Amino acid sequence: MLRLPSCWTQQLPTPDEHSFQRATERQRVLTKPPGSLGQLEQLAIQLAGLYGCEQPTVDPVRITVFAGDHGVCEEGVSAFPQEVTAQMIANFANGGAAISVLAKQLGASLEVVNLGIVGEVPALTGVRDEQIAPGTANLAVTDAMTEAEACSALAIGDAAAERNANNGCRLFIGGDMGIGNTTSAAALACALLNRSPETLVGPGTGLDTAGVSHKSAVVSRALKRHGDNTDPLAMLASLGGFEIAALAGAILGCAARGIPVLVDGFIVSVAALVAVRQQPELRPWLLFAHRSAEPGHQAVLEALDARPLLDLGMRLGEGSGAAVAVPLLRSACALHNGMASFADAGVTDREEG
Amino acid sequence: MLRLPSCWTQQLPTPDEHSFQRATERQRVLTKPPGSLGQLEQLAIQLAGLYGCEQPTVDPVRITVFAGDHGVCEEGVSAFPQEVTAQMIANFANGGAAISVLAKQLGASLEVVNLGIVGEVPALTGVRDEQIAPGTANLAVTDAMTEAEACSALAIGDAAAERNANNGCRLFIGGDMGIGNTTSAAALACALLNRSPETLVGPGTGLDTAGVSHKSAVVSRALKRHGDNTDPLAMLASLGGFEIAALAGAILGCAARGIPVLVDGFIVSVAALVAVRQQPELRPWLLFAHRSAEPGHQAVLEALDARPLLDLGMRLGEGSGAAVAVPLLRSACALHNGMASFADAGVTDREEG
Repeated sequence: MLRLPSCWTQQLPTPDEHSFQRATERQRVLTKPPGSLGQLEQLAIQLAGLYGCEQPTVDPVRITVFAGDHGVCEEGVSAFPQEVTAQMIANFANGGAAISVLAKQLGASLEVVNLGIVGEVPALTGVRDEQIAPGTANLAVTDAMTEAEACSALAIGDAAAERNANNGCRLFIGGDMGIGNTTSAAALACALLNRSPETLVGPGTGLDTAGVSHKSAVVSRALKRHGDNTDPLAMLASLGGFEIAALAGAILGCAARGIPVLVDGFIVSVAALVAVRQQPELRPWLLFAHRSAEPGHQAVLEALDARPLLDLGMRLGEGSGAAVAVPLLRSACALHNGMASFADAGVTDREEG
Repeated sequence: MLRLPSCWTQQLPTPDEHSFQRATERQRVLTKPPGSLGQLEQLAIQLAGLYGCEQPTVDPVRITVFAGDHGVCEEGVSAFPQEVTAQMIANFANGGAAISVLAKQLGASLEVVNLGIVGEVPALTGVRDEQIAPGTANLAVTDAMTEAEACSALAIGDAAAERNANNGCRLFIGGDMGIGNTTSAAALACALLNRSPETLVGPGTGLDTAGVSHKSAVVSRALKRHGDNTDPLAMLASLGGFEIAALAGAILGCAARGIPVLVDGFIVSVAALVAVRQQPELRPWLLFAHRSAEPGHQAVLEALDARPLLDLGMRLGEGSGAAVAVPLLRSACALHNGMASFADAGVTDREEG
């Protein structure tokens, strides 16, 4: 029998309407024209509802990067060789990767979870060894994972959420590392959205046009093999990756524990979409950081009715786009909490017509 | 005879090509797919060229908000009464305004320059009293300023740039405060871009449709009165405001002293466009923070060939949109300076085809 984490099925909390209303009212009396802080106003109000607190703050921020290898790499779907997954795990731990630099700059904690890679990786400080198998199977020819493996990955993600809760985390960022994972994410996006690979498969780390065509054909084979099973767990097992399943578990696990999630790019958004399909009431807990340059991301964002904060042409993964957006959340909260009201500052409010 | 600051006519420095090239090369070897940090890569490279330094940093950041009143308010062009300009100067000084909160959060210095308002403002810490006149004249019926007044405002802006240089400032943000100033900025934008008011006049702090129509008619009268004089100083004097002229002087003055400018929204972008018309070699010194919700901003950004970092629907002024974008510049620099190279991290670079 499958051992699913409770967040997969248990009822998720709902945002606090009272705090949401109080924050909405607070925005109205701050010394600025109503609406003039744009999305920053909505962001502060949304966070107030999620935290059940009129004056929200997002720190401490915790980042977990989930890493795993993909059997589909044997189809030649990536511009980088598969050994890079293991090398980048070491780079995360040693502080040289983009997400390492950003976590340090933000004062956010960073942990890396190794869910299963090809080859050996030495024990490294800051890297949890939670290997399920040495990479997934080739999703073009068979299920990437057994359902038991997918459940293990979900549970590992949920355990990361539990560590977040135990450490007082107020905002969670999940990141991904896995050479080949845009192929898996594109396959999942096609299955979830009933779209053709031609419209959602992109260059990933840097394929040329011929490479994208080939990758698209690989995804087509995977979708044909997969058939029309739309059960979220079955889709994850068939077309996913260890890190994508763990992200889905971590996202649901954070929401279950009242921790908002700042969603990164294509890979994390696909994991979030799987999780929303399983638990639609997850959606309010998701904040969207950026629009990735990877073409499939747009469709996934639309399906989630998401309007991300940034559109900088980033497409790195690792949670990097979400990390770059954290200061916007901090600014939204600082403005909401720190600005004077018209009454306090003795500033005349607009003349109501 | 007019006493123009030297930055109005003297040759501006050019970015350092050598540092630009070295920074470009550095980005190529960092442990990420080439281009995967999107605009953050170009930002770091541009800053390297501006600072003449392969590894740029943007701190300390200095913010100056220029405030002034507008005679055109007698036409009823704003949703807020004119007394708000003076009240907001006090709010800046007392820490309750959006830009005050953001400056504190960023660790940036904030000064406020009062160029001339209607009524009295008490002496306030952090506010420089540099009043030229109690507000400009009504630009719908006469020149807003004499050319001598416009030169005074330019010189006051240049003096702010001089203070920046003396204080080791590496990034300058100019902000604006002045009830009625979107009317002045729209008039300038129409004159600069040869566009009709209907296409560029917007709601400012919150006019309804009838209010925007009326404001558009006021701008039409101003443009008819102004005629077709395209000399930047003449346009500033005829259609500008004290704070807009001071911003143009501060922007040019910073570039003349090798300090990049992070341009805020509609008002500051119009000031930057006037300055670029006077000195086209200013353009590389300008970084664009955000796209304002004020409709005229889009046309001004296009004229400056600018692709701003943020698009959050902000329309507050005060330099607030630029302040919110500062962390993106810091992240771009941290990534550029702090990430490991493929060689250092022992990560395999992509397989060159």
